[in-house]
Amino acid sequence: MTGHENSANGEHLVLENAQLTLDNGSVLKALTLAYRTYGQLNDDRSNAILICHALTGDHHPSGANPLTGRAGWWDNMVGAGKPIDTDKYFVICQNVVGGCAGSTGPSTLRADGTPYGLDFPVITIGDMVRAQNLLLDRLDIPDLFCVIGGSMGGMQVLQWTAAHGDRVFSAIPIATAARHSSQNIAFHEVGRQAILADPDWHGGNYAAEKAEPRKGLAVARMAAHITYLSEAALQRKFGRNLQDRERLSYGFEADFQIESYLRHQGISFVDRFDANSYLYITRAMDYFDLAAEHGGNLANAFTDTSARFCVVSFTSDWLFPTSESIALVRALNAAGANVSFVEIESDKGHDAFLLDEPEMEKTIVGFLGAAAIARGLPAQNHPVTGDAHD
Amino acid sequence: MTGHENSANGEHLVLENAQLTLDNGSVLKALTLAYRTYGQLNDDRSNAILICHALTGDHHPSGANPLTGRAGWWDNMVGAGKPIDTDKYFVICQNVVGGCAGSTGPSTLRADGTPYGLDFPVITIGDMVRAQNLLLDRLDIPDLFCVIGGSMGGMQVLQWTAAHGDRVFSAIPIATAARHSSQNIAFHEVGRQAILADPDWHGGNYAAEKAEPRKGLAVARMAAHITYLSEAALQRKFGRNLQDRERLSYGFEADFQIESYLRHQGISFVDRFDANSYLYITRAMDYFDLAAEHGGNLANAFTDTSARFCVVSFTSDWLFPTSESIALVRALNAAGANVSFVEIESDKGHDAFLLDEPEMEKTIVGFLGAAAIARGLPAQNHPVTGDAHD
Repeated sequence: MTGHENSANGEHLVLENAQLTLDNGSVLKALTLAYRTYGQLNDDRSNAILICHALTGDHHPSGANPLTGRAGWWDNMVGAGKPIDTDKYFVICQNVVGGCAGSTGPSTLRADGTPYGLDFPVITIGDMVRAQNLLLDRLDIPDLFCVIGGSMGGMQVLQWTAAHGDRVFSAIPIATAARHSSQNIAFHEVGRQAILADPDWHGGNYAAEKAEPRKGLAVARMAAHITYLSEAALQRKFGRNLQDRERLSYGFEADFQIESYLRHQGISFVDRFDANSYLYITRAMDYFDLAAEHGGNLANAFTDTSARFCVVSFTSDWLFPTSESIALVRALNAAGANVSFVEIESDKGHDAFLLDEPEMEKTIVGFLGAAAIARGLPAQNHPVTGDAHD
Repeated sequence: MTGHENSANGEHLVLENAQLTLDNGSVLKALTLAYRTYGQLNDDRSNAILICHALTGDHHPSGANPLTGRAGWWDNMVGAGKPIDTDKYFVICQNVVGGCAGSTGPSTLRADGTPYGLDFPVITIGDMVRAQNLLLDRLDIPDLFCVIGGSMGGMQVLQWTAAHGDRVFSAIPIATAARHSSQNIAFHEVGRQAILADPDWHGGNYAAEKAEPRKGLAVARMAAHITYLSEAALQRKFGRNLQDRERLSYGFEADFQIESYLRHQGISFVDRFDANSYLYITRAMDYFDLAAEHGGNLANAFTDTSARFCVVSFTSDWLFPTSESIALVRALNAAGANVSFVEIESDKGHDAFLLDEPEMEKTIVGFLGAAAIARGLPAQNHPVTGDAHD
């Protein structure tokens, strides 16, 4: 196996003993930040793309994910010859601070051997992005060729351009918004209350009790999962089809496929995610409101960046509907930013950004290609290796 | 107080010792059905309007509700001089079988003094409507001038016309559908799983354990409540407004008004509703699929009725969207039914049917007035009494 292949598959790395000043005023010390890189940084250190993950994502967008045993969550998008081409770009993805995939979060053990639990400070999207800046500093990368992400990842993209705009050459916020809406806060609150209602949560100290709020977290995931799909997609995939039976049971078993599917989503989620991290990361999303942080005028958030933007939304996404992207585009226009906007026809709902959407891929390839020319990047970073994509 | 005033305020009544054969094949014996009537039945017994309540409703649409201490759930619609005018019509509302407001349901005590719990049979919309037919028989009312209801009440309206079409002169299904969609089953399943996850549910035997799955039922209600409102209404009413504070707390208190509101909705719901009834009634809605019961062709459901229909939907209702009403209207047209259809512009979401919607009121007044002429009902059932509305 060559070094190239290794880095295309992703290096698993940690940044240790970092220190982060948080928006709530406290300081997180001895911070660990798990991340993964793909591809090669060029000599100019000008070809780095940061991928920001969503609520329940991790730093394994591509290649085998050791946490799930499956392919990464954006494996269709990221890799050699793929839209985010690891033959051309140095791709970085960091597990957000507060997460549970390797970065310091509420389940991390403190010096005394106990996990933070609810002693962990409430973090924000701003804190997550500041932690990513620490990583850029450590890697000695002056600025990002591109920062890209969907949903909460898109919030981080916007936060990058608003708070660290001089470090961003281009930005692709997908299926996101510049503030979390009332309805979205409401769905998050239902999920949090489901976790808090579980007696196995133990006020956040479940680790000490050798317990886990599995049922509560599963219910939270089930509620959230519905919001990630469109009504049309649910009807198309499941409709009112029965699960492993020919007639209604007149009972409370999972008669319908959609029930069985949702139960499976809930149960499998708790195997890979920490309940307290779910509380903290949903809270960070709820707190996100770029306009409020800039005197009530969203355009003010973007006055200090020369980044070029590509805003992407999906027609059937009702969690982060196109109207949110339009509000963002209007503000970017008011700030005089260079912005293109694409609404992609899809019935797959919010999750469309994670799925095989040829229009999204074409949009990103086109935008990155034009940005690469503007940046003066070569068309290929590596010698052509004769892969299938060439 | 005159008899007229008494009946305008509503008589509280029960039908006892009924017997009901259920869709699941079993027979419910010694059934009690709580109901309420308003106004006077005319000599021809031809002016009865049956109001069908929704999932968490009861038989108190108008006047003081002894269960809540507040006005009935449709007090704006039902009463002397109101759109469903108790000066003209004899109005009946029955608590559905399986409910918890007086009719036999899972919390009802059996002969041995224990509640049914999960021994209660799974009931259907068809069973609910058959129980309403028992009441008509007992009251010696040959047929209904009108059957009206929203949401699950609308399902009952459709079931009336499909299964007992000869007893229906006119029908007003509001904000409803001829089948429960995959997305709606999904939301119900989340609510049920929240209840089942609560250790105080005790496999449905919480009464014996002197417990109540309050937290689980509250979470179920919170999730459901979001679906009753539109994103626009939530944004308009709550937005990102903070609750009793000037800045974010960086904690898990109800920082936002929407969180506080939802928590209140959850907590106050458990004081008036039984968790097992919630399981059973949501299940009845999930099972509803008129087309499936008629060879896969919805039009076939309406071939045996000469009822005139007024179908009403609301633009911002995403739980029972207008597309469901359109599918219904198409089937009614295919069946040669007399049908009018109104989609009402409103940002209030599914709950619009319970709220002060002048367009809905005008639609119903107009439809009922024309139907009354066709039925040969007098313009006024009672001598004018000089009330404000005259």
